[in-house]
Amino acid sequence: MKSKLTAVPGSIVAPRGFRTAGVFCDIKRLGTGKGSNKGQKRDLTVIVSETPAAVAGMFTTNQICAAPVRLCARRVRHGLGQAIIVNSGNANACTGPQGLQDASEMAARVAGRLGLPERAVFVGSTGRIGVRLPMENVRAGIDAVIPLLSADLQRADEAAEAIMTSDTQAKQIAVEFLIDGRRVRIGGICKGAGMIQPGMSATGARPAALPQGLHATMLCFITTDASIEPAGLQAALREAVARSFNRITVDGDMSTNDTVLALANGLAGNAPLTARRFPSTGKRSGDALAFQEALNHVCLSLAHMIVRDGEGVTRFVTVRVEGARSASDADAAARAVANSALVKTSWHGGDPNWGRIIDALGYSAARVVEEKVDIGYSAPGSRKILWSLKKGKPTAASFRELCASVASKAFDLRIRLNLGRAAALIYAADLTEEYVEFNKGDVGDPASMGG
Amino acid sequence: MKSKLTAVPGSIVAPRGFRTAGVFCDIKRLGTGKGSNKGQKRDLTVIVSETPAAVAGMFTTNQICAAPVRLCARRVRHGLGQAIIVNSGNANACTGPQGLQDASEMAARVAGRLGLPERAVFVGSTGRIGVRLPMENVRAGIDAVIPLLSADLQRADEAAEAIMTSDTQAKQIAVEFLIDGRRVRIGGICKGAGMIQPGMSATGARPAALPQGLHATMLCFITTDASIEPAGLQAALREAVARSFNRITVDGDMSTNDTVLALANGLAGNAPLTARRFPSTGKRSGDALAFQEALNHVCLSLAHMIVRDGEGVTRFVTVRVEGARSASDADAAARAVANSALVKTSWHGGDPNWGRIIDALGYSAARVVEEKVDIGYSAPGSRKILWSLKKGKPTAASFRELCASVASKAFDLRIRLNLGRAAALIYAADLTEEYVEFNKGDVGDPASMGG
Repeated sequence: MKSKLTAVPGSIVAPRGFRTAGVFCDIKRLGTGKGSNKGQKRDLTVIVSETPAAVAGMFTTNQICAAPVRLCARRVRHGLGQAIIVNSGNANACTGPQGLQDASEMAARVAGRLGLPERAVFVGSTGRIGVRLPMENVRAGIDAVIPLLSADLQRADEAAEAIMTSDTQAKQIAVEFLIDGRRVRIGGICKGAGMIQPGMSATGARPAALPQGLHATMLCFITTDASIEPAGLQAALREAVARSFNRITVDGDMSTNDTVLALANGLAGNAPLTARRFPSTGKRSGDALAFQEALNHVCLSLAHMIVRDGEGVTRFVTVRVEGARSASDADAAARAVANSALVKTSWHGGDPNWGRIIDALGYSAARVVEEKVDIGYSAPGSRKILWSLKKGKPTAASFRELCASVASKAFDLRIRLNLGRAAALIYAADLTEEYVEFNKGDVGDPASMGG
Repeated sequence: MKSKLTAVPGSIVAPRGFRTAGVFCDIKRLGTGKGSNKGQKRDLTVIVSETPAAVAGMFTTNQICAAPVRLCARRVRHGLGQAIIVNSGNANACTGPQGLQDASEMAARVAGRLGLPERAVFVGSTGRIGVRLPMENVRAGIDAVIPLLSADLQRADEAAEAIMTSDTQAKQIAVEFLIDGRRVRIGGICKGAGMIQPGMSATGARPAALPQGLHATMLCFITTDASIEPAGLQAALREAVARSFNRITVDGDMSTNDTVLALANGLAGNAPLTARRFPSTGKRSGDALAFQEALNHVCLSLAHMIVRDGEGVTRFVTVRVEGARSASDADAAARAVANSALVKTSWHGGDPNWGRIIDALGYSAARVVEEKVDIGYSAPGSRKILWSLKKGKPTAASFRELCASVASKAFDLRIRLNLGRAAALIYAADLTEEYVEFNKGDVGDPASMGG
């Protein structure tokens, strides 16, 4: 990324004017406490800005979409927000009108306690699908968390923990950069692990261009003290998500709850970034470019953390397709390879098996001609490629060298279709025994219900 | 199936006038023998009819398609054939012009030894992708197998063994039925195991209607002594494959080598079944119907054997979707569920997790409305359904009872979208640690190369 970005601690409380905290309120109903945290993982957090903020959101395009997603997709249109309440342990998905009422009540209780208008409060949920939220626990959780809200760095750690489900590590980042001489910060937290291949849009409606049939719960909450118009923030978030969360896959399953929300409260005091500086197709320049690049960096870093911490994942593979006939061909080719059970198991085994890769390319929706396909490996982002296949024919590269490329914990798979000029990349993971073991689960264990 | 079908022994040699045998010729280059079978699994077989036969074929629609598939797709157009040579251990895929020459040479050598025209000989291959066939072994194998050809029942066992790769069991069937008073027989052998979601067409070209992006090597060879015109046999085979092999999935990966070939030599002496009795859209009646039903039964039985013997498979699940808006919606919905990593692992765990199922429906290309979806379970083919979800809401069915339904080694998953009248079914399998372990493979083990 650009050298102008400086990493800073504190993730979502790094920008001016944001407070958070996380508590345990037993949303999974383990029966060990209420509103307290007796050694249990936190499961409820609130994030709040001191002042009203511009808000933007991207949401799952799954037709089965959770109550909090519906609530957020509706409220985000107003462009203004001030707080987010998030719970883990229960997705509040497939819960009917009661679910929508519960999501609204969560927002309303936070609004009431903080003296905000209801529609300025957004909701995120992740966990078990199809079970009503234990609202008495949620209410107790909200009442417990509000007095704890602060800008202490430790509170951001609590928030990042509270949104985790099967994640093994909390995922946080914050960066600082300059806009017209003012120091601006963007911070973010996210969670992932399983049911991961997001395909998000701004409305939750499915655009024709989105990959269909393939796609997990990921939640991401971003705060910034930049001053930016809501429509500009939405355009910037759309581009950042398109380059990050919408380009990852762990297991090819798109969740009912995928959500990215961004709040921009303007307390950095920069000259406001207007919406017209973020055209939907076209380049940014100057301060708008600086903001876009910082937001891209935050989203991409968090997206990579999700893949690396995916259920059972041992390898991080960037599938890079070039030379496709069209952008949709490039995307289809990269996703077919990234989601092939046989390719993913071969990565797990450290096997440079180009036969399975070209097989997946061949059944993808992309146009592929055997005699034109190049397949190789490189270190992440490196231009030095070790080709295993050129124009459909095995190269003289030694099997030992190819194995060494794939033995790495992170590598790039390079594919050239040599049919056109379109390119795409997908950040993917291997398929392991641990993934299967985790997800076959204990029958009836809420943790196995995804969403 | 219809009561008029009688099971008979001998699979491909059950019909009159067919001979076969299988030998070991070390195609995987284990270096343990040539043309002999010193305790090694057989890897080469020839099937031959005494007299010229009508031939029909269905082939992978993968754009990366093996040399033997190209050869067969071209020769099958003539409608006549008399022999098939098949090897396992090497797919002869991605082997360029040399691969085509090798496939032709295999056919030519068999033709020469048997005194047949070259184009009457068809070729099938399965195994490692991207490595040239060891032609000296293949030649020795052909020379060894020809003198052994016979109609002994044991020879059919040898042929069924010779086409296996990661299969744990040989797959064979034969049935007898009556056409105008004559006893007619259809026999078949097949292999599957991994890289299994065939999508075959008569030409190997991809029809728009075929599911894209999803799909293994399966080979199937069918013999019959029915008298039937080649175009009638092709139409009957297309219908039988559409209802069987094209409706199975083990891992969602479509192979470069999927092939079904049928030979009909007419030695039963029935009045010839003319092509016009097998319209491409429309019903069969009388003798044509009897033949179609018998062929459907043979293909479906063999297809089920492939799923049950899939790599690491412990459960056989028939995903039945009803009430879809269109046939393509029904197919897309069934395949999304049947290929979801999270649904497949939950089956492995015996977990009646409807959240993952409705999630997969929601991201499929099919139109789905949460408030209309019914999800339930039944014993295979039973009309007694235990519903877990009705109109998007959990039923009162006990969790214990639902678990009992899914604990079965074979069950039907019943999905009603309640949006239209179209239906589809997919025969699917669970995803297990054994699948991952097998396919991560020993690096460089030819067995792990699929195809």
